[in-house]
Amino acid sequence: MNLRVPGPTPCPDPVLEAVGQQMINHRGPEFAQLIGRVTADLKAVFETENDLLILTASGTGALEAAVVNTLSPGERCLVISVGVFGDRFAQIASAFGADVRRLDFPHGTAADPDAVRKCLRDGPAISTVFVTHNETSTGVTNDLEALSGVIKGEFDKTLVVDGVSSISSVPCPVDRWGIDLAVSGSQKGWMAPPGLAMVSVSPRGWKAVAAAKMPRVYFDLAAAKQALELGQTPWTPALSTLYGLQRGAALLLEEGMEAVYRRHAEIGAHTRQLVEGLGLDLFADPRHASNTVTAIKVPPGVDWKALSRTLRETHGVELAGGQGPLSGTIFRIGHLGWVNAGEIDQVASALEASLASLQALPSVPARSS
Amino acid sequence: MNLRVPGPTPCPDPVLEAVGQQMINHRGPEFAQLIGRVTADLKAVFETENDLLILTASGTGALEAAVVNTLSPGERCLVISVGVFGDRFAQIASAFGADVRRLDFPHGTAADPDAVRKCLRDGPAISTVFVTHNETSTGVTNDLEALSGVIKGEFDKTLVVDGVSSISSVPCPVDRWGIDLAVSGSQKGWMAPPGLAMVSVSPRGWKAVAAAKMPRVYFDLAAAKQALELGQTPWTPALSTLYGLQRGAALLLEEGMEAVYRRHAEIGAHTRQLVEGLGLDLFADPRHASNTVTAIKVPPGVDWKALSRTLRETHGVELAGGQGPLSGTIFRIGHLGWVNAGEIDQVASALEASLASLQALPSVPARSS
Repeated sequence: MNLRVPGPTPCPDPVLEAVGQQMINHRGPEFAQLIGRVTADLKAVFETENDLLILTASGTGALEAAVVNTLSPGERCLVISVGVFGDRFAQIASAFGADVRRLDFPHGTAADPDAVRKCLRDGPAISTVFVTHNETSTGVTNDLEALSGVIKGEFDKTLVVDGVSSISSVPCPVDRWGIDLAVSGSQKGWMAPPGLAMVSVSPRGWKAVAAAKMPRVYFDLAAAKQALELGQTPWTPALSTLYGLQRGAALLLEEGMEAVYRRHAEIGAHTRQLVEGLGLDLFADPRHASNTVTAIKVPPGVDWKALSRTLRETHGVELAGGQGPLSGTIFRIGHLGWVNAGEIDQVASALEASLASLQALPSVPARSS
Repeated sequence: MNLRVPGPTPCPDPVLEAVGQQMINHRGPEFAQLIGRVTADLKAVFETENDLLILTASGTGALEAAVVNTLSPGERCLVISVGVFGDRFAQIASAFGADVRRLDFPHGTAADPDAVRKCLRDGPAISTVFVTHNETSTGVTNDLEALSGVIKGEFDKTLVVDGVSSISSVPCPVDRWGIDLAVSGSQKGWMAPPGLAMVSVSPRGWKAVAAAKMPRVYFDLAAAKQALELGQTPWTPALSTLYGLQRGAALLLEEGMEAVYRRHAEIGAHTRQLVEGLGLDLFADPRHASNTVTAIKVPPGVDWKALSRTLRETHGVELAGGQGPLSGTIFRIGHLGWVNAGEIDQVASALEASLASLQALPSVPARSS
């Protein structure tokens, strides 16, 4: 199966071999070595000297951790949303009682730094800004450097970034861009299975944590930091996934992050070129097209479910549909982590053949009752 | 390494082979089949017709899910605690604003159903009772059938049970005992890696969920139920661990649950007999000794850290220390999941040799400054 959803991504053999290793005592010296090594490698990829904590959860769990550790009920925050994952930050912050102000941009477009400036200048005072770096649902990469220049540089807010599908695949220098909390997930560019998420916390971020009053136990980042100082996690960690994450992060560093970023940029451009060559329409603003996931409009008259089935069953290609409001109107090709140009070529051939077969055939009539 | 901590437990080879399998699309038909099969097998072991939801989290995450889905801030609940994990229920409920009434029993003893009756009869009205079935920190198994007879049978309260280290190893018939929410964890008797936790929810439990106002997004059980109806999870699940859990649960059902329970009862008795044969003191009330974990008093004059190191480095045996207030005063042998009598024999031999070597040697003098 050519698995090209934007996570889980395929795992290279050395990662799968690592994942299949036997359990160890998560309170013993062997584990302390393991988590120390993984944490150091993750920090190298995050380009940060901040604390970095590994949570046993999906990426959404780490988004929740980032919210409940930085806000108090009633506290005013700004969520910049360009899609489903920006909306998720807002959903979590609202559920836990924050006073959420939203700045939404149309699906397929990126956040506009000028609009953010205007919002922070003219709107009510807010403490914390949440922003998605790479919006997996629309295939848009926000210009985080420019956004941070406004949010941190001009207004000095606490900055929380969803880097789930960007960090490890496209540059996201956490310290250089002044990101107070940055979140990623093991099943993305890290080439490891899902089940672990990571959060880096700056000294400014820890001040927010100390002041934040939203309730938290499982996602208590201060508890995670305290446990890490003993070479542990507060709760039993997803060991197999951690073995895989260790190997995946090591593979990235062996390849070299500059080479990893170049590979993703080239494959992103290659994907967009092939898709347009098929006469399909890209969904994202080309100036902000993501190099980890490409969103494509479902052509008129084509049923995504039928296309997806043909791709899977006839061609062994697994792509992702649209999420939430974009369900049925776009589909997505994931090209992050363990991916090469040949695999994208195969996706394009399969798409071409599947679309031809679907458009040549009359649609299946609804079954009469 | 003879890993005998009370979780993570060693995984049999077929489980590790399953864990090492390649990723699949978690929104595709293959995943729907997988989660359907695992869920059915887990329900068979839980002995329940209730809904059963699989969360990507440690056991503590599922304890938090059980709390925040059944209570509202300010709501009065009763937590029955016989150790660290009972305390954790109380910690979570307090953190999220519940009015927590506690009924604590001394470490090493079990909860007394008569005391629970008195508490529910004479105390203020409460809605929900939280109880630990098997207390991993002290090696005590509460008489849950008798407790449920009081809590459900006499007082008709919502009953939430931490069965993390009991379900799949000792009988815990969820429907027969009227458990509204029952929690377990993949790294215990299920013989799978840590990273997944399961919660069953009765119709009465769903009524509590509908009324509960504590904030939740990642641990929203209603969202998990809705996703499961589509053969999915709301957030990307820990796939590798799920592969392992599927295989582990299938192995349990192949062995037959009666045989699994008999094996654990025999190995529990065998462990206690060997430990007492070495002249060591058991920590738990023998009438309520756990068949999944045995707690032992650290003999006078022995340093647990030194004993642990000798066991590990000289004999390849990994045991667990005491947790929280019991740190340094007890240690624990895990005997749940993939375990046989010979492995416990080796633990006993290693203990005998290690204690002999430690007591024969003078203690290492503190390094002078």
